[in-house]
Formats: sequence, C-alpha cells, structure tokens
Amino acid sequence: MDRHEGYMARAIELARRGRYAAHPNPMVGAVLVKGGKVIGEGAHLRYGGPHAEVNAVRSCKTSPAGAAVYVTLEPCSTYGKTPPCTELLIRSGVKEVYYGAKDVNPAHSGRGAAILRRAGIKVKAGVLGRDCEALNPAFNKFMRTGLPYVTVKIAQSLDGRIADAAGRSRWISSPESRLEAHKLRAEADAVLAGIGTLLADDPRLNVRGVKVLRQPWIVALDSSFRVPRKAQIFQNERVLIATTRKASVTAMKKFPHNARIMVLPSENGRVSLQALLKELGKLGIAHVLVEGGGRVAGSFVSEGLADRFICFVAPMLIGGTDSKNSMVWPDELNAARKELGLRPRLVSVTKAGPDLMLDLRFD
Amino acid sequence: MDRHEGYMARAIELARRGRYAAHPNPMVGAVLVKGGKVIGEGAHLRYGGPHAEVNAVRSCKTSPAGAAVYVTLEPCSTYGKTPPCTELLIRSGVKEVYYGAKDVNPAHSGRGAAILRRAGIKVKAGVLGRDCEALNPAFNKFMRTGLPYVTVKIAQSLDGRIADAAGRSRWISSPESRLEAHKLRAEADAVLAGIGTLLADDPRLNVRGVKVLRQPWIVALDSSFRVPRKAQIFQNERVLIATTRKASVTAMKKFPHNARIMVLPSENGRVSLQALLKELGKLGIAHVLVEGGGRVAGSFVSEGLADRFICFVAPMLIGGTDSKNSMVWPDELNAARKELGLRPRLVSVTKAGPDLMLDLRFD
Repeated sequence: MDRHEGYMARAIELARRGRYAAHPNPMVGAVLVKGGKVIGEGAHLRYGGPHAEVNAVRSCKTSPAGAAVYVTLEPCSTYGKTPPCTELLIRSGVKEVYYGAKDVNPAHSGRGAAILRRAGIKVKAGVLGRDCEALNPAFNKFMRTGLPYVTVKIAQSLDGRIADAAGRSRWISSPESRLEAHKLRAEADAVLAGIGTLLADDPRLNVRGVKVLRQPWIVALDSSFRVPRKAQIFQNERVLIATTRKASVTAMKKFPHNARIMVLPSENGRVSLQALLKELGKLGIAHVLVEGGGRVAGSFVSEGLADRFICFVAPMLIGGTDSKNSMVWPDELNAARKELGLRPRLVSVTKAGPDLMLDLRFD
Repeated sequence: MDRHEGYMARAIELARRGRYAAHPNPMVGAVLVKGGKVIGEGAHLRYGGPHAEVNAVRSCKTSPAGAAVYVTLEPCSTYGKTPPCTELLIRSGVKEVYYGAKDVNPAHSGRGAAILRRAGIKVKAGVLGRDCEALNPAFNKFMRTGLPYVTVKIAQSLDGRIADAAGRSRWISSPESRLEAHKLRAEADAVLAGIGTLLADDPRLNVRGVKVLRQPWIVALDSSFRVPRKAQIFQNERVLIATTRKASVTAMKKFPHNARIMVLPSENGRVSLQALLKELGKLGIAHVLVEGGGRVAGSFVSEGLADRFICFVAPMLIGGTDSKNSMVWPDELNAARKELGLRPRLVSVTKAGPDLMLDLRFD
C-alpha cells in the first residue's frame, strides 16, 4: 500500500461513519493532507447533510490551500441539496485531488474530474477504486438502474428451518445475530416481509438497538389485503402495503391512516415483485431488506431479484417434517434447471455469538 | 506448557498416525526420553498390531534403561492380542512413566499404574489428560457401554436440503468435502444408510481415496428388505442388512452370499435403532457412521442416539418445495418439547474447499 492508498484507506474508514444515516445517498469519506500531515477529515454523515469534502474542509485548523484531497467518490459537479463540491475544492485552493470510485451516474462520470483539471488541479482517479466502489453497492445499483438493491436476510437453524410445524420461531438466532439483523435494517431504506410472517409473528420490523436518523419504510407483501388493522407494523411512521386487485376495496378503506396502499400487477396470484421494485425505486428507496418468510425470500432469489443474501445459521436443529424451510420456490423451477441449485458467491463467514453469519452475493 | 506436556503433545501427534487403522482399538502414541533427548517414538498403527509402547521401545537406538516414557493412554496390564505393556516397560528398565488418559475399563483403570509403581517406577497420570481422552471418543464410549459411538454425517445445501424434489443430489458438496467424508468412513467400523438412500442413489459406501487396513462394515436399514440384489453395497466385503419381521423370507433367501441379515425388533414399522446399536456393539463395531438420508439421520438425532454430527454445508441453495430436508423426524416430537430445537455443542467450523464443515457434539 503506497502513501496515496494509505490516505484513501483512512477516507474509507471515515466513510463508514455514514453507514446508518447517509443512505439512500452513498457513504463518502475525505481526508486533506498538507506537508505530509492530515489537516482535515470528514464524512457524509447523514442524508441531506453536508458532503464529505465539506466536512473535511470545515474541520481544517490550517488553510486547506495547497493541500491534497483524498475522497472515496468523485467530487460532485451538480447542484443538489448542497452546492457542488468541485466549486468548494477550487475555492479552497487545493492542489491535488485523488478519488476512488467514479461518479456512478454515466451522465456525470468524469465531469467532476474535468472541472477540477480545468481549474489547474492535479486529479487522479481510481485510488483503491474497487474498495471505494464496494462501499456503496446499493447506491451504485440504484443510480444505474433505478431499482433498489435487494438484500435477503434469513435466520435459520443449521438444517435450514425458520420455524417448526406449529410456527414457533422464537428464538432460533442469538441476541448477537439479532443485533446484526437490526444493523441490516438500519442500512436499508425499506424492510419487507410477507403476509405469512406478519400473521404468524406480528413483528414490528423497525430498527432497535441502532441509532438511525429515520426508521426505514415497512413494506408488506399482501396480495389479498389480509393484514389486520392492529398489526404492529402500523406503529411505524411509513408503511406500504403492496397488494393486488384481489384485495377488497372495503378492506383497503379501513387501513390505518399512516399506511400507503399500492395496487400492483399480480403474477400467479401474488404481487409482481418486479413491478414492486420499480415502484419502490420511484419512492427513492435504494435498498430494500427482505426478511421473509421462506416463500418470499425464495421468490426474490429464484426470480433473480436478490443481490445479496445474509444467512444467520444457528447451531441448532429443528428437524420435524412440516417445519418451515428458509428458501422455498416452485419445484418446476428446479426441474427446468440443468444444474442442481443456485450458487451465490460466498463473501464471508463470521460469528455472531454462537451463530454463523454468511454473506453471499448474486453477482 | 511444561516439559512433560511438550513430550505428551508429541505422543498425541504420533497417536494420530493410527487414525484410519487402529480402530476399534484406541489411537495411542508414546515417546521415550533420556538425558533430555527423545530416544524412541511409536504409535499403535493398526488394529492387532503392536501397541505404541512396543513400537517406541523397538525404535530406540540406545538402551531405554533409565528413560522416561510419555504415553497417551495408561499402559495395558492384561494379555490381549499382545502381552501387557507394563511387563515390557518394567523389563526395559524405564524409570518414569507419564500417561494421559486412564484405562477406560473401570476393572482395569489404575491397574497398569499400580503394577509399574510396585516395580519401582515413578508414575504420573493425567498429563494432558483431557486431550489424550479426546483422542478416542468412540473407544471410550464403546468400552464403557458396549454400544458404538454414532457419528451422523450430512452433506447439505445452505438451506438444509440434501436433494431436490426429483431426488437429484449430485453434487451438493465439493470434492474436498467428499474426501473429508471418505476420511470419516475410514475412521469408522461401519457405514450405515437407509433404504431410501440405497434405492435413490445406489451408493457403494466404501472408503475411497484414503488407505485403510480393512473396509468398514456396510449396514443397510431396510425394514421390509427392499434392497435389490444388484445394489452396489454388495460389492463390499462385509454387508449387514438390518430388517424386521416385515421382510419376506423369500426375499431374504435370495440375498447375496456376503451379506449378513439381522432381523430386529421394530418400532413404528422401522428397525429399532437401539436394538441395532446393541447388536452392532456385539459384533465389535465401536464406531458407526450414519450417512442418511434425512429421516435416518433425524431418527438417530431425535432419539438421542447420535454422539457427533458432522455437517458439510455447500454455499448453494436448492430451494424448491418438496426438496428433501437434511434432518427429518415426527413433528409430535417437536410439539412435545418446551424449547425450540436441539442444540448440540459446536466444536469447530472449518473450510472444505468452498464448503463449510461443522463439527457438533451431543454431550
């Protein structure tokens, strides 16, 4: 790792401070270096707040003039909620700008760099480029496609069960796993569950134990509008019921005031997930966490709509016969495939208390 | 770790050389030390062959007189296939004996030590005692109870499936996992499978890719004697069909000459596993490897008959609806339990190629 990469690694570390509050914006970190010393550091800490470059310049106790800037993402060149960072950097008199990932918007990519160069600043792109890009998979996908990044999360026994035949699921996973699961919720813009899970467990689905700026949207997949008015999810601020024309209008009229209803096309009697993701994208939801049950998780995975799969595996066995499986889809899909099974890429295996936490990607 | 423990650690290392051939005898290692130098090393390499002490003494290029002996198991004091090691050690003129585990046979435990002491040898028991004992869980259980140690082995997808609805199971696990599975077979005295697995996959169930002195017994659980005469298991030397009175005598008469038939009591129409284990013990089988399917594995586990569970988890998803689960038992057993699931102790998680290998114990 050379000097430049060292400073960029620090900028990446700073970026992560925005993990639970920057989204749907990207996590970005910035470091200012002058005379071999770090004179300023900053991150994009929360959605709508100042960008990393702004916080880094503000943090300087000596003049940033003549400094080198290390920033994980190409400085923005457009007016959004804040003025463009290119302007700030030029005004501050910095001499060099090293950035990691390119602006993911093809219309803007390279524009920030060009503006800085025209102002006589030395610019180098791609410093720890891959690591910087990997910071924001959801932002990257959302900007490129308009569709939210989909993380499927399951907490299962070692034998792949999420409940016994009677529907008992408390507690499969450890308190440590459950805290990790709340962190996943905190990283997402929406948390989604199927009506089966809502009826069986009546979960609230909000973030607990992790500080967030704003609770995520709650999305219920409920093709026939069976969710009871008193369901705990309605205690959340923003609730969206995704349903179909099967839903009775009377039922819909009685829904709690804070819930938004979306009548979507159906596929085999269920809400079309593709149509749903498109609509969630339009609401500015860049990252949706799918929490199950097994049929909902299996639908996202088997339809090729999942980007990431986080699997908590408790070292316990539920066995039984009619216990609920963690990943369910029609057998015809398997029969039609030449190879047995889907093989996501296993990125990491870590411990969460006594449980294992597997991070897999569908790339 | 002190000096004594250091030599014992070496003896444990030596003991493992008998991993695939010493059973149903225990793995034992021995080190002879004189003047601060190791002058002899040995292990019990194969069933019926010389004990570790004998091999260690034989390996000496200088006289063992006056040496200290480090041996993982209390030296034997009785005539078996070989004369007692206590005699050999006394005759060799060794001065000190350090051993790890006690003779597990309560009738003999401490007797070897007493004989040595009477001969004027300094004796110390329990050096790395736990590690030495842990070398031979199967031998220990078999000596104490007369019942074989039961290792259940499953190769499953991450979502706990061992085959899709059509019965396809090739290949869930990686070549590296399959080699580990052959090592497990090589450690066992018998490999057991249910008739469902035999009919679906027609496996040979022998050890391949690992050198063994003798192939393990093959045990088929087949309550109605449905195994076909041409099944691959009959290519093995020693085959045992465990059946019940439901089996037709005509079918039994046609069985291949190398197969032994055992008509056992039945429980709910299936072979009583408890009765079976008792009979296997009488045949001198100290360690049986249960290879499935899911109902067989689940029966051993749910009836409290499994000692160890080795679970290979491939990072793939089979999903489906009627896919086969890795661990199946009657739902009534779950309903009758206050707590959800069984929680064996997770001893280790290692990688086998792309797969995970979990080692769990029912203590």
